[in-house]
Amino acid sequence: MTEFANADDRSLVELLLAAAERALDDADSDAAAVDSVHVGNMAAEAFNARSGLANALAGSLGMTGAAARRIENTSASGASAFQSAFEAVASGRSERALAVGGEKMSDADTATATEIISRITHDREYEQGVTLPSFGGLAAAAYLHEYEGDRRDLARVAVKNHANAFANEYAQFRKRIDVDDVLDSPAIASPLHLYDCCPTSDGAAAVVISADPTDRTDGAVTIAACESAAGTHAVADREDPLEIESVRIAGRRAYDAAGFGANAIDVACIHDAFTVLEWLEMEELGLAPEGKAWRLTRDGETEIDGELPVNPGGGLKARGHPLGATGISQVVELVWQLRGDLPDDRAVERANRGLAVNVAGFGNNAVCTLLEAGA
Amino acid sequence: MTEFANADDRSLVELLLAAAERALDDADSDAAAVDSVHVGNMAAEAFNARSGLANALAGSLGMTGAAARRIENTSASGASAFQSAFEAVASGRSERALAVGGEKMSDADTATATEIISRITHDREYEQGVTLPSFGGLAAAAYLHEYEGDRRDLARVAVKNHANAFANEYAQFRKRIDVDDVLDSPAIASPLHLYDCCPTSDGAAAVVISADPTDRTDGAVTIAACESAAGTHAVADREDPLEIESVRIAGRRAYDAAGFGANAIDVACIHDAFTVLEWLEMEELGLAPEGKAWRLTRDGETEIDGELPVNPGGGLKARGHPLGATGISQVVELVWQLRGDLPDDRAVERANRGLAVNVAGFGNNAVCTLLEAGA
Repeated sequence: MTEFANADDRSLVELLLAAAERALDDADSDAAAVDSVHVGNMAAEAFNARSGLANALAGSLGMTGAAARRIENTSASGASAFQSAFEAVASGRSERALAVGGEKMSDADTATATEIISRITHDREYEQGVTLPSFGGLAAAAYLHEYEGDRRDLARVAVKNHANAFANEYAQFRKRIDVDDVLDSPAIASPLHLYDCCPTSDGAAAVVISADPTDRTDGAVTIAACESAAGTHAVADREDPLEIESVRIAGRRAYDAAGFGANAIDVACIHDAFTVLEWLEMEELGLAPEGKAWRLTRDGETEIDGELPVNPGGGLKARGHPLGATGISQVVELVWQLRGDLPDDRAVERANRGLAVNVAGFGNNAVCTLLEAGA
Repeated sequence: MTEFANADDRSLVELLLAAAERALDDADSDAAAVDSVHVGNMAAEAFNARSGLANALAGSLGMTGAAARRIENTSASGASAFQSAFEAVASGRSERALAVGGEKMSDADTATATEIISRITHDREYEQGVTLPSFGGLAAAAYLHEYEGDRRDLARVAVKNHANAFANEYAQFRKRIDVDDVLDSPAIASPLHLYDCCPTSDGAAAVVISADPTDRTDGAVTIAACESAAGTHAVADREDPLEIESVRIAGRRAYDAAGFGANAIDVACIHDAFTVLEWLEMEELGLAPEGKAWRLTRDGETEIDGELPVNPGGGLKARGHPLGATGISQVVELVWQLRGDLPDDRAVERANRGLAVNVAGFGNNAVCTLLEAGA
């Protein structure tokens, strides 16, 4: 992956290319040996006045003849592209697939970016001015009202993710914060403050998926499952404002496909676009009992040396959230953790199985990926 | 499919929904029986300030739990979504898939649409002001210089496609034209005139692909192959300005997968964004000998009652070209022809095998689909 940043000088295609080249290099593979390209990106036409990303990338890599397309699924575009690549290999249609996700949000002015991101929501909600941060605020208020966790526990999610990013050279924010920093930051959508929310970012991430077991003799990681599900489009249609059905269904399908469950997970990358989402998704995925995720945070169990490290790379909150890159950057983080490639201050101990969940909108869709160390 | 139009009052999501409902109705299927949705669209964010199409459509259809994503491949977004749906079913991951393509170009002002469509091309070509119509003009000039066909033969492609669209109630242009109308229309990129070029359009098209042979007892059509390939991104990198390698590779792969070749094709839907492309693609696909497609046009062999009817629904030229819808509308046309559903003035006689080719940019990518009558 590229280092995520508030603004990167390179163009979107250059970012995609940089990540692709790193992944090909890591996989010890030539572009010519890859027969399909799956590009994850949310809004290049609107953000960058750029189109045809998949073919631009295939062209830059000299991959004439490869299958190439872009997959868009709003903030889950990255994992959806990864899933597309996984399916191409798993079905036998592709021997070696390249999944590359990226976004360059700094090209867009705030009004454009806000408009496009807001238009992820249901028309009825959009027309009433409901935005993703306001959904986050409503969910956070409901969670704190319903369960015992408090506002300071919520802030601890951001504090932990910033601490993890501090050690991660690919992270956008390499700055430690404390609970008071979160509470003193400007209010965004009560009770959420600025430091409860992920930033806008530039960046790209890529992986090579191969059907050929001889491709790597060491450090191979196996995809145990990659499953997705659409949720209700209008949040108001949900019976419980704290449920994210897409995450629950995608997770259940992934556990079924992998043959292991939440208890087997050693490390998780959760889509923490807002701090409260880390809790809601952990609960939907069975990584915490319902209404109890706050407890794991308060007790430090989700810290990098805790029982279940969550977002060891800093999460969307602090590693950054270049929309189309995020889902693939989660996979990259898990691969590094499962391989044991990372320095001590970054590494989760004894990580054999990892989970990543990438979410579109406020639960409009979710993709859950399970990885296992070894070939 | 919806009736294609210069401007449709409905929103993009409403267009997608209308086409989806028609396809589900035709397939005698409930949305609840469909487990994956594949939306083809090029530029909703830029044209319509709208995002998250796949989830909006899944939500409108009440398909919570389905796999849903959008596939973008510029002007081949429709066929790429169809291919994604086909792969989901062929690989066993989906029992019943819905492919829906659509575009609402009338929301965008001409400057925005021109900019986004021009940014399909390679940076180097874009920076020099080369646009898709100018590529079309260069190729047409080269073809007329290289081979015996003349300017009036090229016009006959448009005349034929307008005649076919005249009988097609779903077509945008239901107006017969003659060769002089083409030659008298304004020059666009010499030697191409306005009537050599497809219009901008609003519309959507959809199909249901099922793995269950009991889904239809009559009128079933089988997907014999659906293959794609990226071409060179920069047109200037091609050894021969008249080659479209993506089309040739995708076609060859499709014939190999289907087990039959160009000689077996009874009807073809060719991506005639510019008249000359109908010839170039027919030649790459082996539907005409190299340098001889003009002869088939001059002799009337590609007319609806000819030896090899091409674009019986009017093609991009006259049925219209709502970018993301086009590839799926080609499949819809072939299904109608292979089933024998159409009135006499619209129908190709004895059509058992059909070919569709949908092209991204000026050959940056191509998807070739082969359909066969019967289950």
